[in-house]
Parts: sequence; C-alpha cells; structure tokens
Amino acid sequence: MGLFSKDIKTLDDLFVHTLQDIYYAENQILKALPKMIAKATDPQLKQGFETHLTETQGQIQRLEQVFQMHGQSPKAVDCPAIDGIIEEANEVAGDVEDKDVLDAALLASAQAVEHYEITRYGTLIAWAHQLGRADCASVLQQNLDEEKATDQKLTAMAESKINRSAEMGGPSA
Amino acid sequence: MGLFSKDIKTLDDLFVHTLQDIYYAENQILKALPKMIAKATDPQLKQGFETHLTETQGQIQRLEQVFQMHGQSPKAVDCPAIDGIIEEANEVAGDVEDKDVLDAALLASAQAVEHYEITRYGTLIAWAHQLGRADCASVLQQNLDEEKATDQKLTAMAESKINRSAEMGGPSA
Repeated sequence: MGLFSKDIKTLDDLFVHTLQDIYYAENQILKALPKMIAKATDPQLKQGFETHLTETQGQIQRLEQVFQMHGQSPKAVDCPAIDGIIEEANEVAGDVEDKDVLDAALLASAQAVEHYEITRYGTLIAWAHQLGRADCASVLQQNLDEEKATDQKLTAMAESKINRSAEMGGPSA
Repeated sequence: MGLFSKDIKTLDDLFVHTLQDIYYAENQILKALPKMIAKATDPQLKQGFETHLTETQGQIQRLEQVFQMHGQSPKAVDCPAIDGIIEEANEVAGDVEDKDVLDAALLASAQAVEHYEITRYGTLIAWAHQLGRADCASVLQQNLDEEKATDQKLTAMAESKINRSAEMGGPSA
C-alpha cells in the first residue's frame, strides 16, 4: 500500500481491504501449519493442528465466496501483522529444545494466530452489517465461530495436559 | 533470538521469555498510542485511546513488578508480532483520507493490538499457575482484565457510533 495513495475512501473500501488482509493471513497460516504439525510431539496437539489445516482450507473457500458475493475477485494484500506473528512463532520454536516445552510454545503461538483471526473476523462482521450485507456477515460468522472453537480447544488442551507436561518435562523439573 | 541458541530449556524459561516479549510489546504500544490519539477525530475514541495510554503505563509497571517477584530484571526481547500489528495499523491509516472511515480503521487496529495482548496475558497466567506462581498470575490477571475491558469498550463504541459514522461519512455514501 502506498503511503500517499489514499486508496481507502469509504467503509466499503475498508471492508474489502480487510477482507484481502485476512485472505492473505489465512493463506500464510495454511503454509505455516504443516511446519507446526511436524514440530508438535503431543498426538492431541498434532491432531488439533491437522484439523485446523482442513478448517483453514474451508475458511479460504468461504472468503472467496464473500469476495464473489461482494462483486470482487479474491485478492490478497500484504498483512505485516500475520507475518510478524508467524515469524515470532518460528523464532521461539527455534529456541526450544525440550519437546514438551516446545509443545507449550507451539500451542501459545497457535493461540496468538487464532486471536488475530478472531479480531479481524469480528471487525469484518460488524462492518458487513453496517454496510447492509447480512449475507456476507453470515458467511464470515462461520469462520469466526470455527476460530473461537479452535481457541477454546487449545486452551482446554493447555490446561489439561500440555502445560503440565512442559513443567514436568523441562530439564530443571 | 539466535536460531541455534536453544535458550529456552524449561517452562520457566518460556514464561520469562514471553514476559520479555509482552514487556517489549507494551512499550511499543506506549510509543504508538500518541500517534493514534493525534489521528483520531471522534472525541470518544480519542478519549478512549488517552485512557488506554494511562492504563498502558500502569501495565508496564505491573510487568516490572512480576519480573521483580520472579527474581528477574525487566528486559525486553524483540516481538515481531506487535511490530507487524503496529506497522499494519500505520499503513492502513496512511491509506484513509475520510476522517470517519479513518476512525473505524484506527478502532479496528486498536482491537487487533488488544487481542494480541489478551492472548499473551492468557498464556502467561496459565503458565504462572502451572509454575506454582499464583502471585505472578494475580498481577498479570489485572492487566488481562484491563485489556478485555478496553476491547469491549471499543466494540461498544464501534457498534454504537464509529461504524455508522464511517458508513454515512464516506464520499460514496
């Protein structure tokens, strides 16, 4: 985006721009997930990431549907936010050797990703309603519901198992 | 962080690292907020950002308290996630001319920041409990409660006013 372009003139433009932002983000997440699956050692966490990969594919299709409903071709714009969140996830994972502590770090990174998606979908749904596009809001709501459910599943997994193993498994335990 | 340093060996190390990450993030937010206050035109939004600036100062002090309770000196580590979220906020704001649409964009960016903080504090609190540090968890909980309240205030402001003004005020309305 050019600093002096002033490309976003209306709420509709802002809605489309943010749709392009989350479209980019979901595609980056799709690329990042196989690496997270490969690194995770807890079978339940690995399975959780695999399920989310399948969900992400469906979420991208829903976004393409919203672009179409809104008379737009699916297009991605750079999203420095998700790039930063994924970069940080990779950096932290690279710094952890113990497999149980690594699982705890991966789970926390996945929750940071989920929260980015939750905030963007929440905003997009509010704007879609404001623009009189309850139809677009309804499709986006399906993605938001899935992201929230994934975040809750990750919290439950952390509390019931992953954090405990990380504390027991670390070399100083 | 060095790719081969494997500095994080235990859940305690991961807790301290993430504390350093959010300490960096809060300090970057403190630097970013005056620019957001200057750009916001809606008085309620401007006031909301001003209140959050004061809260952020208090949150940084609480983090310093947690470092101290944990026998550590306050230290920040690079947090590409918050850098990306703030970079994106600045880019989008630079692309919007209409003041009401800009307010809607600023509010959405602030919510992306809040959600990053919410996920990190949620993780830190869970890890503090796992490490038997209910005292640290309790201080961090105060930050989390403030972030959640700010996010809810922003949602209420968006729904009651800001998004409506953005839709009415845009040049194509």
